[in-house]
Amino acid sequence: MDLKLLQELIVPAQTKIVMLIMDGLGGLPQEPGGKTELETANTPNLDALAAQSNLGLTVPIAPGITVGSGPGHLAIFGYDPIHYKIGRGALEALGVDFDMGTNDVAARGNFCTVDARGMLTDRRAGRLPTRHSRKLAELLRTIKIAGVEFFVEPVKEHRFAFVIRGDGLGDALSETDPLKIGVPPLMIHSKNRESEKAAHYINQFIEQARRLLADHCPANMILLRGFAKLPTIPTFCELYRLRAAAIAINGMYRGVARMVGMTVLDVKGDTLTDEFATLGKNWNKFDFFYLHVKKTDTYGENGNFAGKVSVIEEVDAQIPSLLALKPDVVIVGGDHSSPAVLKSHSWHSVPLLLYSRYVRADGIVEFGERACARGSLGVLPAKDVMPIALANAKRLAKYGA
Amino acid sequence: MDLKLLQELIVPAQTKIVMLIMDGLGGLPQEPGGKTELETANTPNLDALAAQSNLGLTVPIAPGITVGSGPGHLAIFGYDPIHYKIGRGALEALGVDFDMGTNDVAARGNFCTVDARGMLTDRRAGRLPTRHSRKLAELLRTIKIAGVEFFVEPVKEHRFAFVIRGDGLGDALSETDPLKIGVPPLMIHSKNRESEKAAHYINQFIEQARRLLADHCPANMILLRGFAKLPTIPTFCELYRLRAAAIAINGMYRGVARMVGMTVLDVKGDTLTDEFATLGKNWNKFDFFYLHVKKTDTYGENGNFAGKVSVIEEVDAQIPSLLALKPDVVIVGGDHSSPAVLKSHSWHSVPLLLYSRYVRADGIVEFGERACARGSLGVLPAKDVMPIALANAKRLAKYGA
Repeated sequence: MDLKLLQELIVPAQTKIVMLIMDGLGGLPQEPGGKTELETANTPNLDALAAQSNLGLTVPIAPGITVGSGPGHLAIFGYDPIHYKIGRGALEALGVDFDMGTNDVAARGNFCTVDARGMLTDRRAGRLPTRHSRKLAELLRTIKIAGVEFFVEPVKEHRFAFVIRGDGLGDALSETDPLKIGVPPLMIHSKNRESEKAAHYINQFIEQARRLLADHCPANMILLRGFAKLPTIPTFCELYRLRAAAIAINGMYRGVARMVGMTVLDVKGDTLTDEFATLGKNWNKFDFFYLHVKKTDTYGENGNFAGKVSVIEEVDAQIPSLLALKPDVVIVGGDHSSPAVLKSHSWHSVPLLLYSRYVRADGIVEFGERACARGSLGVLPAKDVMPIALANAKRLAKYGA
Repeated sequence: MDLKLLQELIVPAQTKIVMLIMDGLGGLPQEPGGKTELETANTPNLDALAAQSNLGLTVPIAPGITVGSGPGHLAIFGYDPIHYKIGRGALEALGVDFDMGTNDVAARGNFCTVDARGMLTDRRAGRLPTRHSRKLAELLRTIKIAGVEFFVEPVKEHRFAFVIRGDGLGDALSETDPLKIGVPPLMIHSKNRESEKAAHYINQFIEQARRLLADHCPANMILLRGFAKLPTIPTFCELYRLRAAAIAINGMYRGVARMVGMTVLDVKGDTLTDEFATLGKNWNKFDFFYLHVKKTDTYGENGNFAGKVSVIEEVDAQIPSLLALKPDVVIVGGDHSSPAVLKSHSWHSVPLLLYSRYVRADGIVEFGERACARGSLGVLPAKDVMPIALANAKRLAKYGA
């Protein structure tokens, strides 16, 4: 449904919604006829909750399409990730867990090689080893210019994420990479007035970088492209009238949550127990809680089937403390699948459990991929989860008479 | 599928389709783990039919969205209710079961209070009791102006539905409510030539209303807004090449059926038996029959679980007489859910049964929400039901070679 129309139907309520996202939750069996990570995990609490819930399988964007965590999260938060694009620079920054805010302009950076006259001879500085570029990133971090702040985060080989932070910075900026050798890197030009300040400061940064790197051949210069702020997205407050809080350890998820207007809570420590403790401690202050579990994805991407199983079991052990808070709606799901056998994100649909006292419970006493395939929510776009949650939280009025 | 494309695929046939709509059919259990109204009802005939049918769950507009009966019916008739909007005035009139036709312009009316100079002092006349406004509505009905007809139907407190009927009336009309006090109600202006006649007559009506109500302070004047005709929708005849008939007791459903070009049949009496008798009597004259059962929704909205169960059982008892007519396709479903425990329309998906000799029968010997969740139609948009019915009625040609 169109977000504008949805927004018109929102009514206030006192209810609380918890969205527990296990990153990359969906999995695959290790051998034909086997069980997935979630099916293998011993999850008595989730199974009992499943029996009182509706089950289904979410499709992040479209069938067959594998998504990154950015679009995957936008979808489960109710936004169409095709419509709300996260620019390349912002994706690069979020992708290395940089905690982007609304005052930030991010770019993809390359270390490159220039000759004595400043002409490009290698746009990738011989793909220098990541350990080298990490040191050079530290060097670039010493650049200070009054009025703005700079961040440089190494990515892989010659690549790094660049962020400039400050008031009144626009992202309508030309790129410095001429996309060929034998010419100098380009100056940045602003494409509108709002971006003039950013162009000015970034050009200064580049000049200082040139001086700092001069003796570090082959990585003696930088190129920046794909300048992007976070997209402007109607916030959870504007759109759903929810006071929303995010509980996440990693920068990317904190960044995406902040982008949709959630209050990103401080988590003391970095364990699951710390995250759930943060939930309990802030229970009275918000209507909606997004709680993110990273390690399901990490183990999935590392091909560690048993590790992913064990994280799911740890999450299961936290469910009683979650339910003790008496949430009105509980969503347990994922942003995408990351089967250990594929060692990567995948296109597979994602298990979803939706509990409220108003669901017509499916009565399926298991939370797993095949169990969810039998659930009454069917196979549904991830962006439909929020409207269903809002309905169960009694936060949606009737459409038409 | 796009209606225009669907229309191009329609081929003639001699088959007959019956769409039996139990209003607000979907329900909820009274306690966790319990059965819904439909699951509780003893429905041997529907259960037997289910075994030879496809089952599924329909979603009226979008997951989580609760719909009124207007949009709910448009969807099950195959139209996108977001695209074909029923205006506020028309909704008000249909909502009090006013039998709107294509020559009608409807508006939302308020009784209001004006001072001696005609300035508004209360836009809602102190929210006068409904029993008072009912009497004042009767008074307004005495207004007669040659060339058009007026209808005034009390709604609740200060609100009433206003309808003007006549040839050549447009609904591009400004509103009379200035939305503030201390100023007089506004005159109606037409926004196009086609609406000039309506503006002229309605302004006359308002002047007569002012005189009639003068001594009835606080309700001594009226305000009209949200002028709307029924939307122009391709008819069942144009779109599906179906000679379609509607069997419904209540005005709203008769109005919506007329809007999509159905012949609204006279029902002698107001019982289920009377409705099914009307079906039998008109069997040879039409290709498509929409038969509407109101009381499932009435009991649902009143919170009468047992009442809703019993209406469903009464409907079940009529199924043999329906099947004796040898329809080619039978659809049994609802326009939305109205669980007795919620005492209102709800967002829950709606049980659907589709029988024809060409279905790949699911073999599930039960018609109920959980049974339908296991059906091979899955969870589907309500507007997809008509194409499936048309296909089973051999009324759709192949797309592409």
